[in-house]
Amino acid sequence: MLKISTATREDCGTIVEMIRGLAEYEKLSHLMTATEADLERDGFGPTPRFHCLLAKWDDQPAGFALYFYNYSTFKGRAGIYLEDLFVWPRLRGKGIGKALLLEVARIAVEEGCGRYEWQVLDWNQPSIDFYESLGAQRMKEWLPMRVEGEALEKMAEMARKK
Amino acid sequence: MLKISTATREDCGTIVEMIRGLAEYEKLSHLMTATEADLERDGFGPTPRFHCLLAKWDDQPAGFALYFYNYSTFKGRAGIYLEDLFVWPRLRGKGIGKALLLEVARIAVEEGCGRYEWQVLDWNQPSIDFYESLGAQRMKEWLPMRVEGEALEKMAEMARKK
Repeated sequence: MLKISTATREDCGTIVEMIRGLAEYEKLSHLMTATEADLERDGFGPTPRFHCLLAKWDDQPAGFALYFYNYSTFKGRAGIYLEDLFVWPRLRGKGIGKALLLEVARIAVEEGCGRYEWQVLDWNQPSIDFYESLGAQRMKEWLPMRVEGEALEKMAEMARKK
Repeated sequence: MLKISTATREDCGTIVEMIRGLAEYEKLSHLMTATEADLERDGFGPTPRFHCLLAKWDDQPAGFALYFYNYSTFKGRAGIYLEDLFVWPRLRGKGIGKALLLEVARIAVEEGCGRYEWQVLDWNQPSIDFYESLGAQRMKEWLPMRVEGEALEKMAEMARKK
C-alpha cells in the first residue's frame, strides 16, 4: 500500500540513499557527493532550499519527489520546479512515480503557483510521452545553460575586478 | 556611468516596466500580466521568492537581473537560477548585461552556491557563444517541461481523487 508524506529531518538518511540510487541509474555516481548533513542543513533549517515528499510502499521507503520554488516574472507568481523524481527499480510499475508527480501538482495548485516545471532527458521518449499525456508541454526552444566549478569562480573574479 | 545595486521594494515599478520591455522584445506581451503589487508581495515579503539586481546608467534605470535559488541534490548545495536578464535596447553595447551576469556569479560564489544556471533561446547563437566564452555549458540533453493553467488544475484534481 502506498503512502505519501512530507519528508522530515529524520528522513534525510533515506533521501540521500535514494539520491545515490538515482545517480547510479543515471550513471552519474561520481558526481553525487551530497551527504545527510547537507540535506538536513539545506532542507530543514530556517530558510529551506528545497521541499521533499517521501513515498512508502508497505511502510518501506519507495521513492521521493524533491522540489523548490521558482518564479515567473510574466505571471508575477511563484511556481514549482521538480528537481528529482525517483522510485526504487524493484518498486516501479505500481504508479508510485505518477502519484508523487501528481501530489506535487496538487501542492502547486493549493499554494497558488502558476506553473509546475521539470526537465527530462531528451532521449527518454517514454517519459516525454507520459508527461505530455498529462498536459505538460516541451519547452523545445529553451536551452539550459550551466556554469560551475572553476568557470564560476572565474566569472565571480571578473565581477570583483570591475 | 554604471551602478549595480540590490533592488528594494521601491524599485518594483521600475522592474515591472522592464519586465514589460523584455516581454515586448520576446513578442510575448500578451503573457505578461505581473503587477507592481505582485513583485512587492513575492520579492519583498517574509519569504522572498526572488532576488533582483538593478543596473543604473547615469542614474537612470538601465537593466535588471532577477534570480532565485535552486538546489542540486547531487552536490547537496543550493545554486542560483537566473530567470531574467534585461537591458533597455537604447543602452545596449555598454557591457551592462555582462556586468549584471557577472555580479550574480559573484553573489553565487560568495554564498557558497555550487552552480549558476539559466536558459537561452536555442536560436540565439550570439548569446550562446557569449555564454560559452564565459565557461557556461549547454545542457543539450535536458528538455524543459512545463504544466500550467487547466492542465495543472487537472493534475491536481487527479491527485485529490487518489
